[in-house]
Amino acid sequence: MIAVLRQDATQEQIESLCDWFREKGLDVHISRGKYQTIIGLIGDTSRIDTDLLCGLSIVESATRVSEPYKSANRKFHPEDTVVQVSDTVSIGGGHFALIAGPCSVENEEQILTVARAVQRGGAKILRGGAFKPRTSPYDFQGLGEAGIRMLTEAGRATGMPVITEIMSASQLDLFADVDIIQVGARNMQNFDLLKELGRCGKPILIKRGLANTIKELLMSAEYVMSGGCQDVILCERGIRTFETYTRNTLDLSCVAVLRERTHLPVVVDPSHATGASRLVPPMARAAAAAGADGIMIEVHNDPAAALCDGAQALTPDQFAAVAADVQAVRRALKMERDEDR
Amino acid sequence: MIAVLRQDATQEQIESLCDWFREKGLDVHISRGKYQTIIGLIGDTSRIDTDLLCGLSIVESATRVSEPYKSANRKFHPEDTVVQVSDTVSIGGGHFALIAGPCSVENEEQILTVARAVQRGGAKILRGGAFKPRTSPYDFQGLGEAGIRMLTEAGRATGMPVITEIMSASQLDLFADVDIIQVGARNMQNFDLLKELGRCGKPILIKRGLANTIKELLMSAEYVMSGGCQDVILCERGIRTFETYTRNTLDLSCVAVLRERTHLPVVVDPSHATGASRLVPPMARAAAAAGADGIMIEVHNDPAAALCDGAQALTPDQFAAVAADVQAVRRALKMERDEDR
Amino acid sequence: MIAVLRQDATQEQIESLCDWFREKGLDVHISRGKYQTIIGLIGDTSRIDTDLLCGLSIVESATRVSEPYKSANRKFHPEDTVVQVSDTVSIGGGHFALIAGPCSVENEEQILTVARAVQRGGAKILRGGAFKPRTSPYDFQGLGEAGIRMLTEAGRATGMPVITEIMSASQLDLFADVDIIQVGARNMQNFDLLKELGRCGKPILIKRGLANTIKELLMSAEYVMSGGCQDVILCERGIRTFETYTRNTLDLSCVAVLRERTHLPVVVDPSHATGASRLVPPMARAAAAAGADGIMIEVHNDPAAALCDGAQALTPDQFAAVAADVQAVRRALKMERDEDR
Amino acid sequence: MIAVLRQDATQEQIESLCDWFREKGLDVHISRGKYQTIIGLIGDTSRIDTDLLCGLSIVESATRVSEPYKSANRKFHPEDTVVQVSDTVSIGGGHFALIAGPCSVENEEQILTVARAVQRGGAKILRGGAFKPRTSPYDFQGLGEAGIRMLTEAGRATGMPVITEIMSASQLDLFADVDIIQVGARNMQNFDLLKELGRCGKPILIKRGLANTIKELLMSAEYVMSGGCQDVILCERGIRTFETYTRNTLDLSCVAVLRERTHLPVVVDPSHATGASRLVPPMARAAAAAGADGIMIEVHNDPAAALCDGAQALTPDQFAAVAADVQAVRRALKMERDEDR
Repeated sequence: MIAVLRQDATQEQIESLCDWFREKGLDVHISRGKYQTIIGLIGDTSRIDTDLLCGLSIVESATRVSEPYKSANRKFHPEDTVVQVSDTVSIGGGHFALIAGPCSVENEEQILTVARAVQRGGAKILRGGAFKPRTSPYDFQGLGEAGIRMLTEAGRATGMPVITEIMSASQLDLFADVDIIQVGARNMQNFDLLKELGRCGKPILIKRGLANTIKELLMSAEYVMSGGCQDVILCERGIRTFETYTRNTLDLSCVAVLRERTHLPVVVDPSHATGASRLVPPMARAAAAAGADGIMIEVHNDPAAALCDGAQALTPDQFAAVAADVQAVRRALKMERDEDR
Repeated sequence: MIAVLRQDATQEQIESLCDWFREKGLDVHISRGKYQTIIGLIGDTSRIDTDLLCGLSIVESATRVSEPYKSANRKFHPEDTVVQVSDTVSIGGGHFALIAGPCSVENEEQILTVARAVQRGGAKILRGGAFKPRTSPYDFQGLGEAGIRMLTEAGRATGMPVITEIMSASQLDLFADVDIIQVGARNMQNFDLLKELGRCGKPILIKRGLANTIKELLMSAEYVMSGGCQDVILCERGIRTFETYTRNTLDLSCVAVLRERTHLPVVVDPSHATGASRLVPPMARAAAAAGADGIMIEVHNDPAAALCDGAQALTPDQFAAVAADVQAVRRALKMERDEDR
Repeated sequence: MIAVLRQDATQEQIESLCDWFREKGLDVHISRGKYQTIIGLIGDTSRIDTDLLCGLSIVESATRVSEPYKSANRKFHPEDTVVQVSDTVSIGGGHFALIAGPCSVENEEQILTVARAVQRGGAKILRGGAFKPRTSPYDFQGLGEAGIRMLTEAGRATGMPVITEIMSASQLDLFADVDIIQVGARNMQNFDLLKELGRCGKPILIKRGLANTIKELLMSAEYVMSGGCQDVILCERGIRTFETYTRNTLDLSCVAVLRERTHLPVVVDPSHATGASRLVPPMARAAAAAGADGIMIEVHNDPAAALCDGAQALTPDQFAAVAADVQAVRRALKMERDEDR
Repeated sequence: MIAVLRQDATQEQIESLCDWFREKGLDVHISRGKYQTIIGLIGDTSRIDTDLLCGLSIVESATRVSEPYKSANRKFHPEDTVVQVSDTVSIGGGHFALIAGPCSVENEEQILTVARAVQRGGAKILRGGAFKPRTSPYDFQGLGEAGIRMLTEAGRATGMPVITEIMSASQLDLFADVDIIQVGARNMQNFDLLKELGRCGKPILIKRGLANTIKELLMSAEYVMSGGCQDVILCERGIRTFETYTRNTLDLSCVAVLRERTHLPVVVDPSHATGASRLVPPMARAAAAAGADGIMIEVHNDPAAALCDGAQALTPDQFAAVAADVQAVRRALKMERDEDR
């Protein structure tokens, strides 16, 4: 870690700061220039708070030179993590999975019909919302416990592992038969929830928050991993920018950056990012080309109920076409493993 | 609500969409132009999901014309809400309160010393963190239950009501003696927590999330209010932008916009927004001039431990100077009530 | 266009506003609700300023229902525009072009060597900066006139058309032998420059500004087209967000949105967007998969001078590998035209 | 400047990089750790391009420790710059000025009437647009040369200095009688224009671009100052964020940050930032309390033409009320100089 001190820092203040660093067990290297003094800190600086340092009146800037994440850091774990979701499905390390299903579980027939349709189209994991985070208290909040039961039954009937979102640690008992627990974008920094999930023994998929940096996403993975869970999947689902023609801005360079920084698998959700079904196919193809380990797509089965091709969800036929394109891209770029061909 | 349909929408699709609106109990007005068709919806549209509508393949855009928040909406409650915090302290409707205290409660002596110092300086409410949301699992997470006990004792000793942050509904029992419960920026859309807090019978202060719009802040207030609680205080604490010279960008126009849109009191936190103590005084003065009902400021008492004037926290003397400036601004702008002079 | 009026708008104010609309030749439809009045405007609203309308004290919101761009609008020109760059090179309507070359033209040998290398690798158009927009007045500003001469000579020697950036209309005479004139991101809303370029008779490539919306990019195209030029190429090169691990955030959904909204060709520049050569290959592949009509990549030829693989520029070998990947993706997705195979 | 190298940088690459630094005349200090190597550079690093460095494949991050701006830097010029606008009006160093006038000059009577009205209300400098940067080529582009003549005549008639925006260096001859030349937000990085203006001998007001950092604003000032002009005024006018209830987000902490970093005067424009006249008074008061050296406000004189209190412009009466509030705030905070009382 490097701290640059302000021109007007007194000798006494500098000494007092350096003593404090030394108390924390760090080696302190001081370089004095005419207009500033630079302090280099060597040792375990993960317990130094950069924000606190930056706010000190004598500090002009503080830069963390080593990344604050350890368990998630590729430096310390160069090999890709392969998350074993079920006996037959893995994600990461060259294993690719399409995750598909409806936005919300509505009833037994709907989820089973969609499950069969997406499986035919090429999906390996079934998604479906039971607890729905909604901006408005007046909007439909999901079927809750019943929704989870319907989802896991559809998973069992088709042999597909299932993923669904948790909103509070108090719901954890209901997730016993769920294969991957999803943390939504709005809960990415719900640290109490992350800590609990790290102890639950299941793979956790964490969606990037709408205004969270890639580093913060990795720090949230670190929370889960520090609880013992090593099977964390990261998910890019769009960030908030000034652009209004798309609901959010899908940040595909995030995929390439995460590939460098971490050994954890990376999934992309183009449905929520764009908010429009007609933008999902090109973005799914681009996500595959950028090197994603999985793509998560909303699919519905009832064009009438879902209203004229429906929102951000694809029809099963559209999904099958996207799945074929994604496979073609991966094959063209030689990303496929033998078993996937 | 107004929906603009795409040029290529078929007559059948338009009819199917209109039927769906009518099923929801809405009056539907259709205007056809050469290049688009506009549908106006009159009635209770709060249950129509704009995002869903925008995503439909035949819809070019959908605009909510009536605000989706009701309980928080000044249209339906023109009078300012005055939150009665204790027998002696109110916020809103012309009642102004300075809220001050340390970032974290560290020990009994510290919190009591700071409490007395900020009270002398002009604070009416004591703040102090017991459960700390930290980006890194390796950072100090607060004293928890013990911290709350120390804070409420310091409040009792000085006669000041206290405010502190909750991170999970499971902690609610520990907050029995807390006067205002704070929801942090990262939990602003932790909807399960908001619902629980709406039933707890205490005033709730909600901090705006780093990437949340003013409308979303009002919708989060709506969650709390729909649970029965009417004593909600809104807090602007900086939003995330591309600027790097400040930790976040304090959005003071938010104060003026909220004044128009809602009857709820609005508080500003310049300490967390700027992240630097030297920027707190000018921003506190500006917040007062913009019409805030309260200002929340971090104050520490131990210059040595807090390292050379310390981060985003002011010394008690600096706080007293800011408090005097804030009062001067309010008096100059005739914002003061008789009892406050 | 639709305007929603505030609850407290008086009858007289509403009448005065409607009269003003009628003076502008618009049909005015008024719908009164309990809490608001909605005004629908039919006719040519392109001369109504939405910002002005929104700012009126009686107006709650104003929404433009028809797009303010006309010449660039796909609604009025459903067929893709094919920009004929030279006898042999076209962009758009299924014609794809790789554009490559160094960040700056440095000397005759350098630009000719890189030109030959990128041509071998698969580039069809040669790029190279002569006038460089630099944030600091102390940074290298480019070779200027001499740089343009070296670039056009290298183009002639290899038979490749060339593209380079203009910074001021006063430089236009120097661009006589340049095939495509580039408007940089920082000049995207230099409206005087856009007007002049619309009259110069050459294809114009406009880069999206760092904080400009897709709509604003189309409006800048509209400026050029209103001057008579129909050969406008749009270029996505990353937008400014809060993320710091990449220089800018490449917005690939912009490609898919532009495809819908306009008939003009769309090019992606992953080099400037990411700022790091190791992120260019995955983003170039993703851009191809998203449907870009061209990709613009920085390539250097002198690993020593360019310092250890160099910044955002690829080596010629790395470029050739990316070009092969891009072609493989396009072939896999059946995007290639017969002549390109 | 500090560069952190990647773990996999070879000894040869590190040496080659260090040699390159030494060629640039810098002292190089290397510290090796287990997972990274840190290079500290001492000397004049202003010619090293941070972006280029960051993009090198062996570089993990590069941080400029000394600011790249010199002429504008308070470190080297601790005293406030006072810009002498005319014999009677100064800005900076405790001298405060209200700048007011219409968005556009419309005709002789209009500009003279508004000039007299704002002068009565307390304005010291007259503003009025003649060349208008408009997003759409179909919108009114200003009266041009005739507008400048009307503005300067109104200035002469009232004895007020005038300010108006330039859009291209080719217009410079028309600005002979203009007292302050304004560079608009969209031209903040039109570097050719900035260079020309640095040689014109007049005070220059630079508006911050919608997505430009404070550092970039200072670098644009540096461009003008490197041409010889020392009379630069900086203007905060709102930045682009995700918030939609205001046109832009006024960043008032920018005022406090600039006060620390530079000796140049700082002006705030709440009219363009908020886009709504009802938000101008609270934001003008807040700007004064934050320590601005001037405030720029749009005022119109014709309620009928300007449509029901009009957009972002105030009536003369509203302006006079704001001016009184601003003066009250400055007096309460003892910001006034003797001559201003």
